[in-house]
Amino acid sequence: MSLAKLSYAERAKRHSNASARALLEVMERKKTNLCVSVDVTTKSEFLSVVDVVGPYICLVKTHVDIIEDFDHDLIEKLRELSVKYDFLIFEDRKFADIGNTVALQYSSGVHKIASWSHITNAHPVPGPSIISGLASVGVPLGRGLLLLAEMSTKGSLATGSYTEEAVRMARANKNFVIGFIAQRRMDGVGASPDESTEEDDFLILTPGVGLDSRGDSMGQQYRTPKEVIVDSGCDVIIVGRGIYGKGNNLDIQTVQAQAERYRTEGWNAYQERIKGT
Amino acid sequence: MSLAKLSYAERAKRHSNASARALLEVMERKKTNLCVSVDVTTKSEFLSVVDVVGPYICLVKTHVDIIEDFDHDLIEKLRELSVKYDFLIFEDRKFADIGNTVALQYSSGVHKIASWSHITNAHPVPGPSIISGLASVGVPLGRGLLLLAEMSTKGSLATGSYTEEAVRMARANKNFVIGFIAQRRMDGVGASPDESTEEDDFLILTPGVGLDSRGDSMGQQYRTPKEVIVDSGCDVIIVGRGIYGKGNNLDIQTVQAQAERYRTEGWNAYQERIKGT
Repeated sequence: MSLAKLSYAERAKRHSNASARALLEVMERKKTNLCVSVDVTTKSEFLSVVDVVGPYICLVKTHVDIIEDFDHDLIEKLRELSVKYDFLIFEDRKFADIGNTVALQYSSGVHKIASWSHITNAHPVPGPSIISGLASVGVPLGRGLLLLAEMSTKGSLATGSYTEEAVRMARANKNFVIGFIAQRRMDGVGASPDESTEEDDFLILTPGVGLDSRGDSMGQQYRTPKEVIVDSGCDVIIVGRGIYGKGNNLDIQTVQAQAERYRTEGWNAYQERIKGT
Repeated sequence: MSLAKLSYAERAKRHSNASARALLEVMERKKTNLCVSVDVTTKSEFLSVVDVVGPYICLVKTHVDIIEDFDHDLIEKLRELSVKYDFLIFEDRKFADIGNTVALQYSSGVHKIASWSHITNAHPVPGPSIISGLASVGVPLGRGLLLLAEMSTKGSLATGSYTEEAVRMARANKNFVIGFIAQRRMDGVGASPDESTEEDDFLILTPGVGLDSRGDSMGQQYRTPKEVIVDSGCDVIIVGRGIYGKGNNLDIQTVQAQAERYRTEGWNAYQERIKGT
């Protein structure tokens, strides 16, 4: 039986990584598999959106490098909101450099990502050294890493043998790599015929989720929560512009209504999946 | 005849992108194909290294996101040094997200990379939308983009069809993509049999160059300037730890001596290449 049939609570009990366990637990506790991607460029807009969507999400996805007035106070306020509303933080940094450099980018600089982000992600393209570089910083802090096994954009090169290699790199680093950014489950992908991978429980976080649009003018493609959770067995839906629009003239009531809507759609899809036989 | 046999000055005259032309011109003027990668974590160390290596380089490669006390004043001082010593600036950001996000990361946030970095780079993995996203910001400013067609790390996934697709993406965007981060020239790579690519002049900037070491403990592998420039036809050698060590207790005299040494080695290799028949 695929682990996709287990509840988030059951999977939480089986997981060894602290961040993966915490995420699965909050998903069960709050009955949500919704991650909101907050891609706005000012601190005040950012905190407004997080304050509104907080009750509906298991995870907030950030790009702190697009916030003009980023400062330490923003991180403090984000942490307070994450406690108040009970969600985790995922800086979508897409690390993609050699081990020595990503270790510095993760720990240092203005943003100090490792000090506040429970989960981050990396492209496997540099090879296994990117994982060891990030692990040297993240493992002592109990952090979790997602590998970008696939992308939702048109013409993505993360396909075929590239995706298989990403999964192999993850299997070799299960203490730190907790899952994938992908469009489907990765059960058995890239495994050799005699390799047992049934107990692997990689979380699948899926971007490019939208209910009202099929794409944007810059190559993004959208699928519905049901397609993603039921048909493809993914675990977390990542929704951005579907919830807060384009960030100009934020309408808080609309943002709240959309967050509630996506949370319900995502959770219903999950319940359909685990009840299915 | 391969364009690798032409002088930098001749290639500058033929190039349509302002940043590529400026780089080739400064290489010829200063007789250097050395780019120093300044991977230190404080503003004072950063400016000290740039002030010492400035006379020997055509380009400084930065990771501003690892500098703890980054601020606007750092950029102002870097700009002053780039005028004083006549070099260009290359923020090695390795953009790797969807078009909408990279456009924000390039233009916005604390770092505002597009406003001061003549050249930046991107992974082709998201597909062509990453180029259009960055071009929407960079083209109006006369900037140039390098694609990471290959990486110098062990187990890199940027090989084979991935590299070919990167080159095809570059050919389709020659107004903005001025070359590659790669270990060899990309003449004709990924071209269809009836496609004429002889006039393509993509600059090849090559990391992983060192005279004294063959690698580090985090998967980096090193080659000499002669291997890179003569044997593989690359244009710019990127040297980091070979010049300034590990950044602790910087010895300015050593840094200067090493910069001079790499500049000489790189230029001699180039002269050997263009004189060869």
